[in-house]
Amino acid sequence: MDQVLKTAEKISSMQIRGAGRIATAAAASLRDFSLGLRVQSLEEFNSEIKRAADVLVKTRPTAVSLSNAIRMVTKYQAGDLESARQAVIENADRFIENSRKAVERIGQIGSRRIRDGDTVLTHCNSQAALSVISTAHEAGKRVKVIATESRPRFQGITTIGMLDKIGVETELIVDSAVRSVMNEVDLVVVGADVITANGTLVNKIGTAQIALSAREARTSFMVAAETYKFSPKTILGELVTIEEREPEEVLPDISRYKHVKVRNPAFDVTPHQYIDLICTEAGAIPPEMSYLIIRERLGWELEEES
Amino acid sequence: MDQVLKTAEKISSMQIRGAGRIATAAAASLRDFSLGLRVQSLEEFNSEIKRAADVLVKTRPTAVSLSNAIRMVTKYQAGDLESARQAVIENADRFIENSRKAVERIGQIGSRRIRDGDTVLTHCNSQAALSVISTAHEAGKRVKVIATESRPRFQGITTIGMLDKIGVETELIVDSAVRSVMNEVDLVVVGADVITANGTLVNKIGTAQIALSAREARTSFMVAAETYKFSPKTILGELVTIEEREPEEVLPDISRYKHVKVRNPAFDVTPHQYIDLICTEAGAIPPEMSYLIIRERLGWELEEES
Amino acid sequence: MDQVLKTAEKISSMQIRGAGRIATAAAASLRDFSLGLRVQSLEEFNSEIKRAADVLVKTRPTAVSLSNAIRMVTKYQAGDLESARQAVIENADRFIENSRKAVERIGQIGSRRIRDGDTVLTHCNSQAALSVISTAHEAGKRVKVIATESRPRFQGITTIGMLDKIGVETELIVDSAVRSVMNEVDLVVVGADVITANGTLVNKIGTAQIALSAREARTSFMVAAETYKFSPKTILGELVTIEEREPEEVLPDISRYKHVKVRNPAFDVTPHQYIDLICTEAGAIPPEMSYLIIRERLGWELEEES
Amino acid sequence: MDQVLKTAEKISSMQIRGAGRIATAAAASLRDFSLGLRVQSLEEFNSEIKRAADVLVKTRPTAVSLSNAIRMVTKYQAGDLESARQAVIENADRFIENSRKAVERIGQIGSRRIRDGDTVLTHCNSQAALSVISTAHEAGKRVKVIATESRPRFQGITTIGMLDKIGVETELIVDSAVRSVMNEVDLVVVGADVITANGTLVNKIGTAQIALSAREARTSFMVAAETYKFSPKTILGELVTIEEREPEEVLPDISRYKHVKVRNPAFDVTPHQYIDLICTEAGAIPPEMSYLIIRERLGWELEEES
Amino acid sequence: MDQVLKTAEKISSMQIRGAGRIATAAAASLRDFSLGLRVQSLEEFNSEIKRAADVLVKTRPTAVSLSNAIRMVTKYQAGDLESARQAVIENADRFIENSRKAVERIGQIGSRRIRDGDTVLTHCNSQAALSVISTAHEAGKRVKVIATESRPRFQGITTIGMLDKIGVETELIVDSAVRSVMNEVDLVVVGADVITANGTLVNKIGTAQIALSAREARTSFMVAAETYKFSPKTILGELVTIEEREPEEVLPDISRYKHVKVRNPAFDVTPHQYIDLICTEAGAIPPEMSYLIIRERLGWELEEES
Amino acid sequence: MDQVLKTAEKISSMQIRGAGRIATAAAASLRDFSLGLRVQSLEEFNSEIKRAADVLVKTRPTAVSLSNAIRMVTKYQAGDLESARQAVIENADRFIENSRKAVERIGQIGSRRIRDGDTVLTHCNSQAALSVISTAHEAGKRVKVIATESRPRFQGITTIGMLDKIGVETELIVDSAVRSVMNEVDLVVVGADVITANGTLVNKIGTAQIALSAREARTSFMVAAETYKFSPKTILGELVTIEEREPEEVLPDISRYKHVKVRNPAFDVTPHQYIDLICTEAGAIPPEMSYLIIRERLGWELEEES
Repeated sequence: MDQVLKTAEKISSMQIRGAGRIATAAAASLRDFSLGLRVQSLEEFNSEIKRAADVLVKTRPTAVSLSNAIRMVTKYQAGDLESARQAVIENADRFIENSRKAVERIGQIGSRRIRDGDTVLTHCNSQAALSVISTAHEAGKRVKVIATESRPRFQGITTIGMLDKIGVETELIVDSAVRSVMNEVDLVVVGADVITANGTLVNKIGTAQIALSAREARTSFMVAAETYKFSPKTILGELVTIEEREPEEVLPDISRYKHVKVRNPAFDVTPHQYIDLICTEAGAIPPEMSYLIIRERLGWELEEES
Repeated sequence: MDQVLKTAEKISSMQIRGAGRIATAAAASLRDFSLGLRVQSLEEFNSEIKRAADVLVKTRPTAVSLSNAIRMVTKYQAGDLESARQAVIENADRFIENSRKAVERIGQIGSRRIRDGDTVLTHCNSQAALSVISTAHEAGKRVKVIATESRPRFQGITTIGMLDKIGVETELIVDSAVRSVMNEVDLVVVGADVITANGTLVNKIGTAQIALSAREARTSFMVAAETYKFSPKTILGELVTIEEREPEEVLPDISRYKHVKVRNPAFDVTPHQYIDLICTEAGAIPPEMSYLIIRERLGWELEEES
Repeated sequence: MDQVLKTAEKISSMQIRGAGRIATAAAASLRDFSLGLRVQSLEEFNSEIKRAADVLVKTRPTAVSLSNAIRMVTKYQAGDLESARQAVIENADRFIENSRKAVERIGQIGSRRIRDGDTVLTHCNSQAALSVISTAHEAGKRVKVIATESRPRFQGITTIGMLDKIGVETELIVDSAVRSVMNEVDLVVVGADVITANGTLVNKIGTAQIALSAREARTSFMVAAETYKFSPKTILGELVTIEEREPEEVLPDISRYKHVKVRNPAFDVTPHQYIDLICTEAGAIPPEMSYLIIRERLGWELEEES
Repeated sequence: MDQVLKTAEKISSMQIRGAGRIATAAAASLRDFSLGLRVQSLEEFNSEIKRAADVLVKTRPTAVSLSNAIRMVTKYQAGDLESARQAVIENADRFIENSRKAVERIGQIGSRRIRDGDTVLTHCNSQAALSVISTAHEAGKRVKVIATESRPRFQGITTIGMLDKIGVETELIVDSAVRSVMNEVDLVVVGADVITANGTLVNKIGTAQIALSAREARTSFMVAAETYKFSPKTILGELVTIEEREPEEVLPDISRYKHVKVRNPAFDVTPHQYIDLICTEAGAIPPEMSYLIIRERLGWELEEES
Repeated sequence: MDQVLKTAEKISSMQIRGAGRIATAAAASLRDFSLGLRVQSLEEFNSEIKRAADVLVKTRPTAVSLSNAIRMVTKYQAGDLESARQAVIENADRFIENSRKAVERIGQIGSRRIRDGDTVLTHCNSQAALSVISTAHEAGKRVKVIATESRPRFQGITTIGMLDKIGVETELIVDSAVRSVMNEVDLVVVGADVITANGTLVNKIGTAQIALSAREARTSFMVAAETYKFSPKTILGELVTIEEREPEEVLPDISRYKHVKVRNPAFDVTPHQYIDLICTEAGAIPPEMSYLIIRERLGWELEEES
Repeated sequence: MDQVLKTAEKISSMQIRGAGRIATAAAASLRDFSLGLRVQSLEEFNSEIKRAADVLVKTRPTAVSLSNAIRMVTKYQAGDLESARQAVIENADRFIENSRKAVERIGQIGSRRIRDGDTVLTHCNSQAALSVISTAHEAGKRVKVIATESRPRFQGITTIGMLDKIGVETELIVDSAVRSVMNEVDLVVVGADVITANGTLVNKIGTAQIALSAREARTSFMVAAETYKFSPKTILGELVTIEEREPEEVLPDISRYKHVKVRNPAFDVTPHQYIDLICTEAGAIPPEMSYLIIRERLGWELEEES
């Protein structure tokens, strides 16, 4: 359990961060926990696994990638202790492997939407979105990228570093300059933190403004997202909670001010009407098909859950 | 001439900055130059004043407030040297005084558009826009302000400092969070760097995105602008040049990257369709009336100029 | 048959009204008819049931809830008379029970979309929409409701009465005032008379205007609808007929006028682009998923029907 | 003064109502008061007139037609008592006569926008709008009118009565049915209570919804307004106050409810972007030209007023 | 093989043209080839069929109807030569028969969307779209058609010829006049060359402009398309290539010019947001349901294909 | 009078065509008529001139350039015959000269809106629009033009011929391809047949569709128009009549068809909301300023005219 607690803390404190990475880490942690678990009965095993899962899922309760991962790892039907253990291990390994493959596959599918000579705008630092760009680049297409700096944490700097390393021509802009350059952009590609049952996108703050600017200028807007970013509970009406981060991230010396507060929402909400396509490892879909993806891929069942 | 050159350098190096302040400084400089000018004839005086004006106007050739100021100061018809000198002095004093009064008057007019309990969003650090807010506050209306940080130069920090000092409740957000909060905003108020003959607004980068978000959410968008921010030459078709600032302002260690450039436009362009009202010292006008303001207030004449 | 005819007349004369209530009454009527039916053979039974169903379905031929109910009750495959009778009874009971549960379930799902402190606008008097609001209220969320009066029949008065009884703070407005208050509204919730295969909503006259105003102000627009409100025949291209009611409902003394007519459409048509979400008992879906709901829940089969 | 007080009360209690009629009544009242005024000096006369004017203007302080009328009547420069009296009388007569002519002239100008066979939608009961329709009808054009009933006071019933009398084919609809019929409408014509400096229209509640529906369906939207409906003070930033009427107008038995309020705004606000043309007696103008109309026709001067 | 080559050439040279006709011709050609094929083993048969299929599919590589047809014909699992041959024959006959039935069925379904007295606009010369119109006409509905001439190949002339023959009242317009007449149109009906996984329509150049005009005027826009017009590969991200035809089609004497080029794209791309409904032989669907149509009707499987 | 009748016939039969050329021809014709006129008195002269003017203005009654020209030529106040004659001659010469200068000046003003490297789309064959493009080209800016063919009369072919001659790189497209290329276009420039008091543009059929596509893609849309293209009578509400040309222009063999008509409107109507700027010889204005242009430049006076 120590190792589970340690992973939980790392996720909670954001040493491990990024929707994909925390999901993978949680799956690995459950697998390792399962492997080392010294119990006598299936019942005991089940109960311990449940306990560990609860610890992990609470670290960042709104991260759907985390709860989807844990759900997939802990879904098994076993007649005895060892086959339960085996199931957890296999589930975890499968999740981790599928997750890796999903990014690769999204890269293949999404990169077909990029034409030679295109200018692509991206926001923040999404593995899936960058997989789309780098796959197109590796396929020999000339791609120019415009990357936003993505205040307050400047993940755009990580993005330009990654693109620079593989030799993709990139321009960095402040977040406010998106509309100024939009008429030159052929395609916007962003990642996803959560996708809801009706295709609404929850992603890094600023994404919705970019989508709005793209719509205004008739520029295509594509989301790159592994299917475990889709939220089953939204079928039950659940609203996605938008995490509000600490003010110092934006204004370190906030204590100097008497009448000033900081609002620091980490994510914003892009309506599906502004999204042309979502690229998943299960294919490219219109956002409205998210409901089907959830039902078919995430084992969602209405009666059980509610 | 020394003093003129010194002022010119301060403007050019942005020690003196802000559309209003550079206009006032240039006017004062011409007045002082005129006062000390040792010449024998009217012709000589005219030619010296012209030389000084040219030096000043070239410091930031696209700042319309600068050329409007100089134009107003140097517009005189005189029969002899001393009355010419007198005219320059009076013109300059009048411009400076009018400029001060304009901000005050815009505050009075604009503040009437704010209702008790309103939430007002502002961008960057505009004297005229803040005059609107502070006048409403002083009139006893409860106003909550949401201020953007305004990357890359963080002028929003200056704004929250000024509002904090006078006791206005303020929230600071990153530029990317504008759309997230827009549904709570009753009125957007921004300043202007240039307003063209058809009511297009050139202002701090990010303004156009805010206007677009305001339009999407049916939120009023108001510009606060002294009439010397209007550009006569745009009647002649002239396009406003958007200043591109140095990359280090955004990415100090740009030299580390091989394939990365920075694009750093200082301003963007908001179409008049997104602007509900422009508050000037000559009254509140629809943006399309900019043409008339230019003709009536700025002494523009087609035949002469072109 | 007497009792069937009596029910038919009550529906036809609108003593029993409301899409849900007429569906339930028709199902109950068929059940009772089946129970008391004195026939000798299965063939005779089938033919009598069909006759009764035809009587009922013709009372208000465009009410999809009615035809869906009758369709569900009369769908059986039986080898003998008594098992046919049994099937009809079970079908009817199941429909009535499911109908009741659906409203409850929609209340649970839909109420999750309401946040504490929200202002919700509703139109007409929909059981499903009110279930959403009252469930949120019962869950302890502070909800303010704005209700339209819903001319010509003033169903809004029924709505405010129901909300008043359970203690929900409510404001009544005339239908013309919707756009005036829309900027204060967080969520619009309405019911449905019919939902078509492509997610178009047919509902109480005025609904489409409200949806348009909501879209203009970036306000969410949600529909609460049991799945039997979805129309299978629209997959076959069928247009929903909009009932035109008698002129006196609007203008009692119409006979005084020589050149005046009244147009009194009972419903209007809201395009799916203006709908953010449909809450059904089968989960929250984007309107475009209506096609799937029809296929999966309503037993629609293309070959048979056409 | 008795007669002034009597007129004031009639306006205040809405025995005299309608923007045009109250303006005319106030002008006539001032004229009659001036005629009968027994004073010794010009100063006394001026002060009495001012007192009477104040009484009248306060009856409905937000009616711009009222303050414009009084302003025009009391604008005079006179050297002695009798020429002052004469001026008031002449001003009043001129206002009344111009007001009558304006409606006629608007009818001529506006009716040219109606083509033979057109369907025209109108709202509430505007003299100027009906002048447009009746002039077209008298000119032999076949016009069909769709009139809204205009809750809560049903002024639409007055409208259909007037149209019926002159033989215009008319259809009455509830306010909620506007969008349903909009695709059949060629032209919307409405009156105005106030028009602001940037062309915003303040008119009978429901107007803005109609304008929005017209825009959505690419239907022309025209305003018919005498120039004294334009508000000079809006150039100084003044917001038009929207009168909130008593709740009983909408819900007579409101006292039965514990948690229910009524909101009953008399007017709403239509943005100039939804208005194609304003027909005034001074010609047809785009709404953005309102600023010029105010300056040229209403004697507005910035310096004096503020 | 000779006959296959001959058909291939006819398709390639556009003697046989139209998405439906080339698909049917290719299917028939494969069937005939299969019938006459003199081979000894199943392996040999398979390999010959594949060779023939490759020849056909390459004639117009981007025509999805062609590749779908060939795919359906050549999909068989057989244990021996003769059953393979039989399968190809049956597949081809089934495809041809289904194709014929599909047009008829689309006509039935789509014609229900046309009301008596409607004006329908169509573009180019689509069998499926004309089936909708003629079925409505045959059902006794009065339909007026507005047909575009459809430059550069004037397929509109073929359309008016066909409609004239069956007695449908038709008006011909130049392509530029679409927006001028749109306010009179009740319904736009066009065919499809390709429909992608997210419901995007690729069709005759000009279609997207028509859809945009329809949206601007709140006019319904319907697509009539057999399911084999849907493109499975777009689920894998594939972009539809837009065929660029020879310049002489537009400007026969292009050689006279030194600085002039012609751009002659045969198709354009209509976003799904502008499409209200797609009528297929499998029912009327919202465009977003295209993904499901592809998966269910076209045997698409992600793993195999990519 | 013979010569006047001859000119009138040439205009009427469209031997002389184009808004500018017919205006100039009419002015010249009146001048020559005046010169040769053998009359005894001023009254006789006036009456003859009026008769000639009437003949000319009736040739194409809706061409505002024609009536504006004649109005300007025949506007004089003279005490005697010879000074009247002189006035007509001078008026005509001035009009012709001003007309020539206007095109040149519009070229100067408008060309400033074109940046080096821009792609400009134009429609039909407008002198003023081409003056904008050629002036930019002569100023050394690299400009690429996309020209529509402009069915039914293919004036686009004239346009590409003119541009080819001066060496401007040009691409020809069919009118249906406008939306397909719009994302590459930086600026649309078209001419004008009529501009109304509220800035509505009446121009060659197809213009409105182009403006709509430009708006959809956030592309600038500019009109180049001499001030005599503005219509004074539209201030009086007059609707611009859209000329309907003969069907054979579109369909030469129309007689072959029994149920087919042709609709051939020569012009369409672009709402001012889609126009960013109008370039006139009096400067660049927003379309809403058209009212002022009419009042100031065209000598329009409300009282006289109506």
